[in-house]
Amino acid sequence: MVDIEKANKLAVEKMMDSRPVLVGVEKAGKVIPGREGRENLLTHAGPPITWERASGPMRGAIAGALIFEGRVKTYEEAEKLVLSGEIDLEPCHHYQSAGPMSGLISHSMSVYVLEDQTNDNYRTFSGLNEGYGKVLRYGAYSEEVINRLHWMDDVMAPVLDAAIKEVDGVDIRALIAEALHMGDEGHNRNKSASLLFLKALAPGIGKVCKDPQITSEILKFMGDNALTVLNPVMAACKAMSDAAHNIEGSTIISAMARNGTDFGIRISGLGDQWFTALAPPVEGLYFPGFTAADANPDLGDSTITETAGIGGFAMAAAPAIVTFVGGTAPLAMETTMEMYEITAAHHKIFTIPALDFQGTPTGIDVRKVVEKGITPRVNTGVAHKDAGVGQVGAGLVRPPMAMFEEALIAFAEKYGFN
Amino acid sequence: MVDIEKANKLAVEKMMDSRPVLVGVEKAGKVIPGREGRENLLTHAGPPITWERASGPMRGAIAGALIFEGRVKTYEEAEKLVLSGEIDLEPCHHYQSAGPMSGLISHSMSVYVLEDQTNDNYRTFSGLNEGYGKVLRYGAYSEEVINRLHWMDDVMAPVLDAAIKEVDGVDIRALIAEALHMGDEGHNRNKSASLLFLKALAPGIGKVCKDPQITSEILKFMGDNALTVLNPVMAACKAMSDAAHNIEGSTIISAMARNGTDFGIRISGLGDQWFTALAPPVEGLYFPGFTAADANPDLGDSTITETAGIGGFAMAAAPAIVTFVGGTAPLAMETTMEMYEITAAHHKIFTIPALDFQGTPTGIDVRKVVEKGITPRVNTGVAHKDAGVGQVGAGLVRPPMAMFEEALIAFAEKYGFN
Repeated sequence: MVDIEKANKLAVEKMMDSRPVLVGVEKAGKVIPGREGRENLLTHAGPPITWERASGPMRGAIAGALIFEGRVKTYEEAEKLVLSGEIDLEPCHHYQSAGPMSGLISHSMSVYVLEDQTNDNYRTFSGLNEGYGKVLRYGAYSEEVINRLHWMDDVMAPVLDAAIKEVDGVDIRALIAEALHMGDEGHNRNKSASLLFLKALAPGIGKVCKDPQITSEILKFMGDNALTVLNPVMAACKAMSDAAHNIEGSTIISAMARNGTDFGIRISGLGDQWFTALAPPVEGLYFPGFTAADANPDLGDSTITETAGIGGFAMAAAPAIVTFVGGTAPLAMETTMEMYEITAAHHKIFTIPALDFQGTPTGIDVRKVVEKGITPRVNTGVAHKDAGVGQVGAGLVRPPMAMFEEALIAFAEKYGFN
Repeated sequence: MVDIEKANKLAVEKMMDSRPVLVGVEKAGKVIPGREGRENLLTHAGPPITWERASGPMRGAIAGALIFEGRVKTYEEAEKLVLSGEIDLEPCHHYQSAGPMSGLISHSMSVYVLEDQTNDNYRTFSGLNEGYGKVLRYGAYSEEVINRLHWMDDVMAPVLDAAIKEVDGVDIRALIAEALHMGDEGHNRNKSASLLFLKALAPGIGKVCKDPQITSEILKFMGDNALTVLNPVMAACKAMSDAAHNIEGSTIISAMARNGTDFGIRISGLGDQWFTALAPPVEGLYFPGFTAADANPDLGDSTITETAGIGGFAMAAAPAIVTFVGGTAPLAMETTMEMYEITAAHHKIFTIPALDFQGTPTGIDVRKVVEKGITPRVNTGVAHKDAGVGQVGAGLVRPPMAMFEEALIAFAEKYGFN
């Protein structure tokens, strides 16, 4: 008989011991294992999806990525190309990657490269963050969006790569731990973490970039974006979650991700199978001019943060987040307190000052989710349901219970419980 | 009969309406009113003090400033020069300035220049922050200390001045408000505020500085110092407190400051008179190798932060501060809650997320201090009692009750209460 408690303890220990360090920025098609030379591969957030079932923002991002790659000129041409069967759509999660919202990563795009120092330098990846509003990850693909992506790739990425090497890398786990003491929770509120990231890289950027105008532009672009660090944080959480994946007999959730149509989870002891349900709507605050009727269902790989014990699970560290996800400050504390009910450990590195430095609730146990009837709490951005628009708000969401039940049944079947 | 309530309301409104904006960096002897051409003037923290009564760290800083100015070569020569009567020692507070710890500002030193946008551009000033450990403000004066001061003045200051102008100034009140949502309290914990400051200036620094090596060094020096912004914050609090000063009939405290020997306060309705008592010892955490026996009594103008409604008064926003001032996280909340007992208002700009965005306790009413028997709570750094050593720890302190009682009696006498 498998010892679930022992397996879960091992999984969560491995999750917490994982120490991903940012080591550089390179082209996805060059650096990500399995992507080499595959110009037709686009990876996206969440579990697998087809064009036919893809949401508006996911379709918009796919079209934008193909325009960026110079494969097509319009949305209509992109749709035709994808429907021709020439383009492979696969989850970022299948390529050691994680991407916010649509999560689109195409062949030529630059990605952050992280190495897990306690896990044989296992590598994980995430794209560069574009900022707010009309951006590819929210399904926008206008000329402004594509031009920004080219500037990021052509001008910023080489400087970032050299700067990261100049400062000998950035320990993202240490950065997250520090930011949790500075009012961040690591998912929607990454304001302090982004400034810590800027602080770490700025001396390197200043040194390696020989053009003061470009130095100034990069420092401004990174500094003005309070989500600059979200992508490296997600790649770090992907490393931590993957460290806890494939532990025989473990009921710990090792991935949660949404593609805008489906919400999917993976269980450590159940290999690479996805358990999915329709992605739910998000309850939150909308930007002026938008309402819940404009909102796409839940989207993005960013739930990898909650999977690794931060994000919604660490909201007690970030009461100010309610100003953009809605609710009152006590909600932030309640959210964290509830998540202790469904997790296996208190994080030994990520702590919450307001709880007198107690560790964050870490390692979601699918048994507890089902037994207690408590689904994970997630905070997230909200995309417009149509392609081409962008972000319309932010809020809170819980994944549907059905897929947790389905996963637990599958676990019982595999391991012979009745 | 004077209407104290009305006077206090006006004083606190003026304090909260004050909006100091950083506009540049210039030489103290050139820009501070009353200092022009006065090469023999040294200003220091706290109420007036003589060399004879000055503490070790204050004497060390005076000696260091005279070495920096090229007036003497050694501590002994400095002592002789000061005792000759040639040097004028006066409080920073008498020159629209505020300085942390010894607070020493000499003729040639560069100072931040702030203008209060809602108060006829009233100007306030503070020096550049040197970082930690062996630094002039803690009484160290070795060659390393003096060389750093020269680098700051010769290399960094001109770049900062140009960068501040390049970014059109920095609204320090807005910056403090933002940092209170990021785990800072604005006095000993200015970590997020310092990064916001770096973020604001970095694009300007990158642009105006044409030497990548110097750009890199300045970005690193500022980024590595989590108290980089303390001095502009103190100058901003000086502006806010001065806006509340000299209101006829007001019992609001408009300055609290320590010179390392005496703690002094001023009352808005009592003009420029100082009420003083011996500075108390600080209870706190000591750096490895040091104990309470090494500690100088309370020192510095930084209590201007508590005077303006942040610092110790805003500790509920910064539970992580207990890691370096001692105590447990609930102490941070208790400190803020107690300060509501002795203050006149909840700040309308400075708010605390964990208290569901309630304003910080602002405007200390000397009547309430005496009537309730509750003295202000202050968090602070601790200097070694001997000249030449530097910082040895950080902790919490309360000023002695006697001077509040004395001030209240003086108020009653002036305004004819019995």
